[in-house]
Amino acid sequence: MIDSSNDFAFFTHDDLLKMDKLQRSNFVNCLSGYKSANLVGTTDGRIENLAVISSVVHIGANPPFLGMVLRPHTVPRHTLENIKQTGQYTINAIDASWYEKAHQTAARYPKEVSEFDAVALTPWYSQGLIAPYVCESKIKIGLQVAEITPIHCNNTQLVVGKIDEVYVDAHAIAEDGMLDLPVMDIACISGLDTYHRPQMLARLSYAKPDTPTKRLSANS
Amino acid sequence: MIDSSNDFAFFTHDDLLKMDKLQRSNFVNCLSGYKSANLVGTTDGRIENLAVISSVVHIGANPPFLGMVLRPHTVPRHTLENIKQTGQYTINAIDASWYEKAHQTAARYPKEVSEFDAVALTPWYSQGLIAPYVCESKIKIGLQVAEITPIHCNNTQLVVGKIDEVYVDAHAIAEDGMLDLPVMDIACISGLDTYHRPQMLARLSYAKPDTPTKRLSANS
Repeated sequence: MIDSSNDFAFFTHDDLLKMDKLQRSNFVNCLSGYKSANLVGTTDGRIENLAVISSVVHIGANPPFLGMVLRPHTVPRHTLENIKQTGQYTINAIDASWYEKAHQTAARYPKEVSEFDAVALTPWYSQGLIAPYVCESKIKIGLQVAEITPIHCNNTQLVVGKIDEVYVDAHAIAEDGMLDLPVMDIACISGLDTYHRPQMLARLSYAKPDTPTKRLSANS
Repeated sequence: MIDSSNDFAFFTHDDLLKMDKLQRSNFVNCLSGYKSANLVGTTDGRIENLAVISSVVHIGANPPFLGMVLRPHTVPRHTLENIKQTGQYTINAIDASWYEKAHQTAARYPKEVSEFDAVALTPWYSQGLIAPYVCESKIKIGLQVAEITPIHCNNTQLVVGKIDEVYVDAHAIAEDGMLDLPVMDIACISGLDTYHRPQMLARLSYAKPDTPTKRLSANS
């Protein structure tokens, strides 16, 4: 670590490789900024599995696809096995009223233990899917696997799912399709273990070259 | 849209396909939860390019990799062309003091216009990279392309970069490597156009099967 001017600290690739494991993991996991906070629900047909995940990413709206990055050989390993076996999973938004339970699903429970039971969250089933939803979640998304794409550089996998069904708090949907995440008190994550509650700064107008950005609505 | 019990609205895959384009885009872009707010800096060697992106995702810490999802045939199309040409790009965290300038980079400027000039942000160059950083950004990450992986289901691309260098506000780095994103006033995004400022709920202890989750530090 080399202090540069302007109060910036500078790190090279080699500096990052030389950090101790936990320090590097904390540091690099913070670099991308705030991350979505979701629980992935799966089953092998017998035992329900629930895993906190912060790598869900928007892939496309038409048709609707979501992606998530999973590492095959670490937690949530049962998640990937179950997804490959059944082709189905759920993504459930974590909110500020039960984020501590959600975080606890990251513990390495034995495969025969359901994280729903271990952390006292409630499995809920729709008629269309065999994967369990988290009843407490205000945004429940049911997905069918569309593709599992290997990321070669570090042997992780991008799991892409087609959105099959969505259950969402009806009070949080605007006429134009926007969801009011603060109304649902949805949480977000930084690093490996820090949870946050966002407050809206503003909704901005569609950006056009000849027009300055306008605030369509704002808190302050 | 079918109202179910418990104040939940229910949407099938077909319901989403039948929405009008903007409504579906707003809705699906909100489903993944809060998204990181970053600017991607690139150059073709002549014109600097800057594009707001909300799909940056953590790929791995050791070695350090970040991913982002780009669509080849829409904005930020110059970004992908430049990345393929030079093999380099920067990721720059957007904060609450200049998020409106960052959003304005999404306008469809002609290729000969630098978004730095158009929105009045300052290009800054390190000695190691030809891609421009955003001087105003408190987390500046320089990357070399590691792989560009096609996502077949909708013809998007996952661009994975090896982190080559990092410049970060020295006041925001903890001993254990954690970055304090709220101290830097880093923003996040919901949907296509809504910006938020997160406040910390708590940092939680490493989850273990036999121990309840503890708050290591908290705001309230």
